[in-house]
Amino acid sequence: MEHTQLLCNISELNHLFRENISIEYLLERIVDLICSHMQTSVCSIYLYEQSNKTLTLRASHGLSPESINKVSLKLGEGITGTALKEMRAISVHKASSDPRYKHFASINEEQYDNFLAVPIHRGIERIGAIVLQRVKKKKFTENDILACRAVSSQLANMIENVRFIMDIHEQHANTAAETKSVEKVIRGRSAAKGFAVSELEIYDQDRDFKRYKKLSYDKQFTIKDYHRAIKATANQLKTLQKKVEERLNDAAAMIFTSHLMILQDKAFTGEIEKLISEGINPPVAMIKVAQKYIDIFSQADNNFVREKVQDVEDLSVRIIKNIIREKEESLELRGKIVAARDLFPSELLRLSSEEVSGIILVSGGVTSHLSILARSLQVPMVIANDPAIMQVDEGTQVLLDADSGNIYFSPEEEIILEFERRNKERLAVSAAGREVKPQTYTSDGTRITILANINLLSDLKQARDVKCEGIGLYRTEFPFIIRSDFPSEQEQYITYKRLIDGVGDKPVIFRTLDVGGDKVLSYYHDAKEMNPAIGLRSIRFSLQNIEVFEDQIKAILRAGSNGDIGIMFPMISSLEEFETARAIVEECKEQLKKRGEEHISNPKIGLMLELPSLVEIIDDVVKESDFISIGTNDFIQFMVGVDRTNEKVSDFYIPHHPAVMRSLKRIVETADKHGKPVSMCGSMAGDKAFLPFLLGIGMRTLSISPSYIPEAQSVIEKIDISRAQKLADDICRTPRIAEIAKLLKIDHTPDSVE
Amino acid sequence: MEHTQLLCNISELNHLFRENISIEYLLERIVDLICSHMQTSVCSIYLYEQSNKTLTLRASHGLSPESINKVSLKLGEGITGTALKEMRAISVHKASSDPRYKHFASINEEQYDNFLAVPIHRGIERIGAIVLQRVKKKKFTENDILACRAVSSQLANMIENVRFIMDIHEQHANTAAETKSVEKVIRGRSAAKGFAVSELEIYDQDRDFKRYKKLSYDKQFTIKDYHRAIKATANQLKTLQKKVEERLNDAAAMIFTSHLMILQDKAFTGEIEKLISEGINPPVAMIKVAQKYIDIFSQADNNFVREKVQDVEDLSVRIIKNIIREKEESLELRGKIVAARDLFPSELLRLSSEEVSGIILVSGGVTSHLSILARSLQVPMVIANDPAIMQVDEGTQVLLDADSGNIYFSPEEEIILEFERRNKERLAVSAAGREVKPQTYTSDGTRITILANINLLSDLKQARDVKCEGIGLYRTEFPFIIRSDFPSEQEQYITYKRLIDGVGDKPVIFRTLDVGGDKVLSYYHDAKEMNPAIGLRSIRFSLQNIEVFEDQIKAILRAGSNGDIGIMFPMISSLEEFETARAIVEECKEQLKKRGEEHISNPKIGLMLELPSLVEIIDDVVKESDFISIGTNDFIQFMVGVDRTNEKVSDFYIPHHPAVMRSLKRIVETADKHGKPVSMCGSMAGDKAFLPFLLGIGMRTLSISPSYIPEAQSVIEKIDISRAQKLADDICRTPRIAEIAKLLKIDHTPDSVE
Repeated sequence: MEHTQLLCNISELNHLFRENISIEYLLERIVDLICSHMQTSVCSIYLYEQSNKTLTLRASHGLSPESINKVSLKLGEGITGTALKEMRAISVHKASSDPRYKHFASINEEQYDNFLAVPIHRGIERIGAIVLQRVKKKKFTENDILACRAVSSQLANMIENVRFIMDIHEQHANTAAETKSVEKVIRGRSAAKGFAVSELEIYDQDRDFKRYKKLSYDKQFTIKDYHRAIKATANQLKTLQKKVEERLNDAAAMIFTSHLMILQDKAFTGEIEKLISEGINPPVAMIKVAQKYIDIFSQADNNFVREKVQDVEDLSVRIIKNIIREKEESLELRGKIVAARDLFPSELLRLSSEEVSGIILVSGGVTSHLSILARSLQVPMVIANDPAIMQVDEGTQVLLDADSGNIYFSPEEEIILEFERRNKERLAVSAAGREVKPQTYTSDGTRITILANINLLSDLKQARDVKCEGIGLYRTEFPFIIRSDFPSEQEQYITYKRLIDGVGDKPVIFRTLDVGGDKVLSYYHDAKEMNPAIGLRSIRFSLQNIEVFEDQIKAILRAGSNGDIGIMFPMISSLEEFETARAIVEECKEQLKKRGEEHISNPKIGLMLELPSLVEIIDDVVKESDFISIGTNDFIQFMVGVDRTNEKVSDFYIPHHPAVMRSLKRIVETADKHGKPVSMCGSMAGDKAFLPFLLGIGMRTLSISPSYIPEAQSVIEKIDISRAQKLADDICRTPRIAEIAKLLKIDHTPDSVE
Repeated sequence: MEHTQLLCNISELNHLFRENISIEYLLERIVDLICSHMQTSVCSIYLYEQSNKTLTLRASHGLSPESINKVSLKLGEGITGTALKEMRAISVHKASSDPRYKHFASINEEQYDNFLAVPIHRGIERIGAIVLQRVKKKKFTENDILACRAVSSQLANMIENVRFIMDIHEQHANTAAETKSVEKVIRGRSAAKGFAVSELEIYDQDRDFKRYKKLSYDKQFTIKDYHRAIKATANQLKTLQKKVEERLNDAAAMIFTSHLMILQDKAFTGEIEKLISEGINPPVAMIKVAQKYIDIFSQADNNFVREKVQDVEDLSVRIIKNIIREKEESLELRGKIVAARDLFPSELLRLSSEEVSGIILVSGGVTSHLSILARSLQVPMVIANDPAIMQVDEGTQVLLDADSGNIYFSPEEEIILEFERRNKERLAVSAAGREVKPQTYTSDGTRITILANINLLSDLKQARDVKCEGIGLYRTEFPFIIRSDFPSEQEQYITYKRLIDGVGDKPVIFRTLDVGGDKVLSYYHDAKEMNPAIGLRSIRFSLQNIEVFEDQIKAILRAGSNGDIGIMFPMISSLEEFETARAIVEECKEQLKKRGEEHISNPKIGLMLELPSLVEIIDDVVKESDFISIGTNDFIQFMVGVDRTNEKVSDFYIPHHPAVMRSLKRIVETADKHGKPVSMCGSMAGDKAFLPFLLGIGMRTLSISPSYIPEAQSVIEKIDISRAQKLADDICRTPRIAEIAKLLKIDHTPDSVE
């Protein structure tokens, strides 16, 4: 029972520690104890530092004392590093001839060939390792390993308890050393495809203002400098605002308006002038007044106001930069690759109007509407959850391969050349791709209708370029998302009318407001939910905010008075819910009739199939609805219970799950049986790997992002329907993911986020 | 086009405002403008205050000036209050005879009988109302209403922008007035049933320490007082710890141990003594040292350490209370009803061991494991999302009806008597309910097996009392949740062994670790997810943390060496995932064999059906698995895409959705076809409304909370299988929720949270 004895003594140590001894002394006592109890020649303890993934020798009985704090191993390096990496005990009889063995000169371990490394961890958190070494004859037994693991488990807790106190002391040294330690290549996820090579610019909303606040302004500026800066700032903002408006004429994208409003507020500028007249240096005066406003705004408890704080900070930094005339181009983000922690949709719009060449989002929790927006704005964007990126020197050369999601820092000349060559090819192919035909047929002459998904009016141009046959999904939430308040019926009407006019006589399907989930309106206060994806979103939001819903419906009905339009409700979960929503459309028609406004009298009313609960009642759903459109993204998400925007589980998001495949077949067949139109508008519809399957189950209408249309057409033209049907049947017969992947010729990894 | 003109002038006003004029002046200008442009006699603006749901007259052209800031209406009161409540314009031709009309003396509005009230709002946020009044002959037209709505829409933005600056000035007055304004009865949700009448105690972890920090300690205490307090505190803690251990002998529920450890830490107590010896008053010395520890702990970035901060604060408050000897009973929570903002599971355990008589949780985001825990601990608990509760005076008499979720403050004597009478009846019925038979049969003699759901070892007693036929669901995460680190294999082994020994020769089904989602381990750092319910949880967590998973499996295999046990994996989404998990069980058996440990060689391996993706492949799932158990809570959640713990959407969580009903039938029939055992362990199995349906589709095994067993048995005894089958057939034939509700005789509202 010697092992039990050992455990007791270690809990004694725990007590000892509270007597205020040092951690070094504690670890020494532990290795001594283990050695004597377990009769080993050497016992060492390594502690693991998460930030640099390094194990360092912290105490040893048996190895030379000079090696303490000197010898270190990377995670996965040597037997010890491997044991910790794989979180399992490793026992080796002839350590020095083990391929993993890592030799350190002069630490005096050559004679000990029996080697046992046991990880110290708390659950999944790596803390360190205990290493025991014995001379040749005394091999480690299974019992030794068990005992050592028991010790390790007790140690874990104790070390973890004192660890962060040690950390506090060591922190300064570490942070200094760690800054700028970023890998040469970081693998992120593609959010909006494209390619860019440029200088890096760190867009740190938080840091920027703080940095200028901390600066000591040695040079004395004058009131003239201040006036010049105000004028320059106003001009810059007006130019930017004009650019936004040229790009986006959706319901009032007044992105820089609030900046301009503050700038024209005499209370604001007057207060700064007053301070300057009292002898305060203009940049300091600017900061003082800004801070006062920020303090007032910050007390408010809603997102809307927090965006205002951001506005004040942005504006102040702009003015200060103009005062101190930090080289003129420093204000220019044009052409740069911008790394940012998280962005409001309005900020993304701003960056886009400043013509940045690419964006790196350093955040795991990126919501899908940002990705969609970036694609609409055609800004290459990669999401990479590595905070070290924000520490990289501004001006570093960066190659952003947003097709694959790779980011190269200070890339070699040949890499750049290679990418530029590939990019040229891509552009050439894409230009060639523009040669799309107005209609799409499979190789056997079956007609397939390709519609476009549209987010902003600016997408229309591309949709027309690729000759889409109509709009299969207009995501009406974007005019809501890019604003700072709910657009009125009239504002929506103008936007929708422009869209319909732009499409001509082709059909347009409006999806009603799909907010909530990851598409949060900053001005809709009440948005804190534990699980927004299964919270107050989409049609549920609309049905609980009838006034907002009715305004939208009326705007659509009015705008569609002469068009071929359909209205569909997202996230419908039951027949009753669909009927309730449809009744509101009727009610809106009545209201318009009373008002004497022109409107469409019989728009097609449909629903998006996104919830598994509709599949079992699909027969009745299809009968009730004028048409249905399948939203694969949410559908798959709920089928397998996986949030695909969550990197930790995105591997579990499997579109080719047999249940998904079979459900799709069932849906399409049922719609066909009742002669009701069915289309698909989720990511799957634009994924060439799935096209043969989709046509095979009878899908004849697809609605996809305009940029995918040329490729989709050329893939479809090669598909033979009878072979596609055979494939679909085979797929729907197997209950196994891997077999389906094989049939579809895809690998397991999910694609980009939408 | 006069209306357009009006709009322009209002945007002029917007500019005016920036010139630094007051809001009062601004509103005056607006009402004047509206009056002249729209040719009305009276125009008034009311602003709405969310906190007290009151509209107050802020400006008027036409009404007497004295009424400004005096006249006020509750939301829904009068025509104006109704317009804002229902968010729609109301136009009335004969206002004074409208039933909604509210007359105010001497505001001079009698002569104006045409009344138009238009709400001012931003989306769903209520801001105020514009009221127009005209003399008899001039009715308001549809066009007037439209114009007024346009004005309201412009005003909304402007007012919202200045509003919170006004608010800042008015804040102090408001907060003072609002304190203690709590309704007499608050309706919450039942989390753990029961009944209590007692004094209210506010458990505000945050406030308590801060309050003692702010006190000025006039009386000088001595080192003797301090020593006495330390001793008293230690005794109190030891008593409490003993009580916890008596109640819970699951893997080391060492709830007060960390308090005791800090108390025995000489560095901690010594530092306080040193300050006292330097002349500092003991309570102040205590606070100084505590603050120092808290500052160090607070820098750490994980939950685990934040719990430690709580420990230090709790302990310090305890010591100070003992120093200043605030009347002895102030430390006693025993018998009280405690209101708390949010609780760690460990805090709930503490409150339970202090024998509180009931708990009110003032928080919307309560996770289900707290409710489950409260039920296991048999503490009545209600969740009520009303922060005003935390402001109620301590000592107020409270009646907690945790069956219905109602909380009565200072209830009338007769209410208390009535409830006490009902409670006695309930206890009598419940005692009678204990007369359960060892086996359950329907009225036609069909055998139904009723198993128990178990969370903690302490639930076993109740399970035995109600003669359960085994454990159909042992939620193994509870020993994980109530601790502050992962339990080792050995610790788990001891707990599981106790459970199996306690159950005797009856079967026990272990569900492997189901953490993540809303069951967050405070020591598992990496838990911030946007949508935890579809994040890294359950089997996904286990498969990504193999070491933790293997420890658990080995502990189960060892504990079950002589038992009749099954192991099931939660949240399985595909055949492949199930096979991967099952392979790990095989691997663990190999490891135990090598170690020479006794273990069960062929436990039944099954899965929980909680994801819609298994239904379409149910045939193969059933073939692969030894048994399946249906977890209705998650299954319904994913089918309809609704988070049932989110109050905002819980009405959309509909267990009797036709797709749910049909899927259940399909699952049970498939299992029967292959002769595989199928059971149900979600809330639905314990809901008497669903029992006829469940038996009707062929379900023969149910696993439910022990407290529901007597009632379930008596309901089942009255069921006739052939009639149940007919009912089930009828239910599965209709695609409508309302019809199913009628067949099941249930109303629409969902039950309590689990």
